[in-house]
Amino acid sequence: MPEPVAELLRRAAIACDAELNVVMPAAEAEPRRIHEAMRYSVFSGGKRLRPAIALAVAEALGVSPAVGTTCGASVELIHAFSLVHDDLPAMDDDDLRRGRPTNHKVYGEAVAILAGDALSVLAFEVLATRLGNAPGIAPALAELARASGTLGMIGGQILDLEGEGLPPTLPLVESIHLMKTAALIRAAAVLPALAGGAPPEAVAAMRAYGTALGLSFQIVDDILDETSTPEELGKGTGKDRDRGKMTYPVVVGVEAARQRAGRLALEASEAVRPWDRHGALQALAAFVVERRS
Amino acid sequence: MPEPVAELLRRAAIACDAELNVVMPAAEAEPRRIHEAMRYSVFSGGKRLRPAIALAVAEALGVSPAVGTTCGASVELIHAFSLVHDDLPAMDDDDLRRGRPTNHKVYGEAVAILAGDALSVLAFEVLATRLGNAPGIAPALAELARASGTLGMIGGQILDLEGEGLPPTLPLVESIHLMKTAALIRAAAVLPALAGGAPPEAVAAMRAYGTALGLSFQIVDDILDETSTPEELGKGTGKDRDRGKMTYPVVVGVEAARQRAGRLALEASEAVRPWDRHGALQALAAFVVERRS
Repeated sequence: MPEPVAELLRRAAIACDAELNVVMPAAEAEPRRIHEAMRYSVFSGGKRLRPAIALAVAEALGVSPAVGTTCGASVELIHAFSLVHDDLPAMDDDDLRRGRPTNHKVYGEAVAILAGDALSVLAFEVLATRLGNAPGIAPALAELARASGTLGMIGGQILDLEGEGLPPTLPLVESIHLMKTAALIRAAAVLPALAGGAPPEAVAAMRAYGTALGLSFQIVDDILDETSTPEELGKGTGKDRDRGKMTYPVVVGVEAARQRAGRLALEASEAVRPWDRHGALQALAAFVVERRS
Repeated sequence: MPEPVAELLRRAAIACDAELNVVMPAAEAEPRRIHEAMRYSVFSGGKRLRPAIALAVAEALGVSPAVGTTCGASVELIHAFSLVHDDLPAMDDDDLRRGRPTNHKVYGEAVAILAGDALSVLAFEVLATRLGNAPGIAPALAELARASGTLGMIGGQILDLEGEGLPPTLPLVESIHLMKTAALIRAAAVLPALAGGAPPEAVAAMRAYGTALGLSFQIVDDILDETSTPEELGKGTGKDRDRGKMTYPVVVGVEAARQRAGRLALEASEAVRPWDRHGALQALAAFVVERRS
């Protein structure tokens, strides 16, 4: 019987937080304000789903868990950077994130912009310093950069902003989700395979897994935004629809969105079945569609 | 007789621009607006001093000029990212840069923030993809990340913002300049040495050279801001003093600042003399203090 997902998430969060604590400057290190701001957003009660994916991939492929943890930490730094910048007044202008004031509400806009910048740069520093001798360090770094850039996460955020008020269509919402969310979740799955020097077929399987899982994850996020209470989610709900954001439920309805998320999770599971020796990757895929927050 | 600095700058600019043109997405590639915005700020008539330093270091150490050019292009991407973000309304709130409207004036704040983010990420992608097989790729990547982060450029910008209105002191202005400007100029000198696998003494010499040259460069920048006309500089002048920014002339006066810049350029030259087989590095140091814009 595979390890329960809750246990994997807990294990990955502990390992990832320990790694982040080592690689991030202390809040007391000068310049203090930016280090405080970085830690405020990185240690804010996230689920650490991406580090759990990275750790599970490493364990599935026989890559050292330390490599999985470092890859997961670097992806989590990029994720934190994107949330800090997405919340800025010039972007989504959000005051709350995970039930707490957003970074710029606490530290001001200038510090929030620079803290996001610094988290992004730190992600690459962590990979280059902690995995400098890993066989596939350069391809792993290139993968993380591409996943974060204009053909990945940052490009998705641009499309998301430009899409507000446009007529929502399935191809557009799917491109946005693939770039804005799935690219980085894919990176969490692919990085440990690349860094650890896994065979090309394993890398390809993790790529397919991460893409399907990432898209499924975002569709479920859209559904939860429509159907949950703010208490359940720890943030405002129904905001995507109010803002004219492209979401799956807006385009196809909640029921069809749920079915699509389920099919994608199955696709993800199919892709990794030959490699998933502990069953953890398939369990994560099931968790992503069944979660309630 | 060494190659005239004007010729080195011209050669480096041509090589760097060709490299940037290859590695940056085309302005017509989707999402167009961010690719246009990135190109707007990268191709904006900068001197390409950092790529010239990187190319000269490569040539001095017998590292392939292609490695020097890629290192220079990656440093230039970080430099462009920092200018786009520094000009934002929440930071220095500048409308003009090199005689043209700043990025956020043309493309809006959201796109400018994301374009800066994307330029930063692209710098690491370029190193990892173009120099993936270089012997010292991981140390070079780590060096660029550290130079850009909170103990380098980004940290310097925080101190610079926090310093506005504080009583200017020499230790504070020197820390700001070392972090905000010298760290990245040092990276331009150190990256080709690291990536090319140069001996540790050569790396150390380039580190000393880049630090002294970078500090000298920023002091001269401060002096030019005080003593030039806007036409000579292509941007507003006297703005640093008006804003209460920490500058060398404000702390020690123009004459003493000029002397300090000259001494630092000599220090830089001393550090590289044993390695500077074509004399280009010493010529660059002399150029930095003699320039008029």
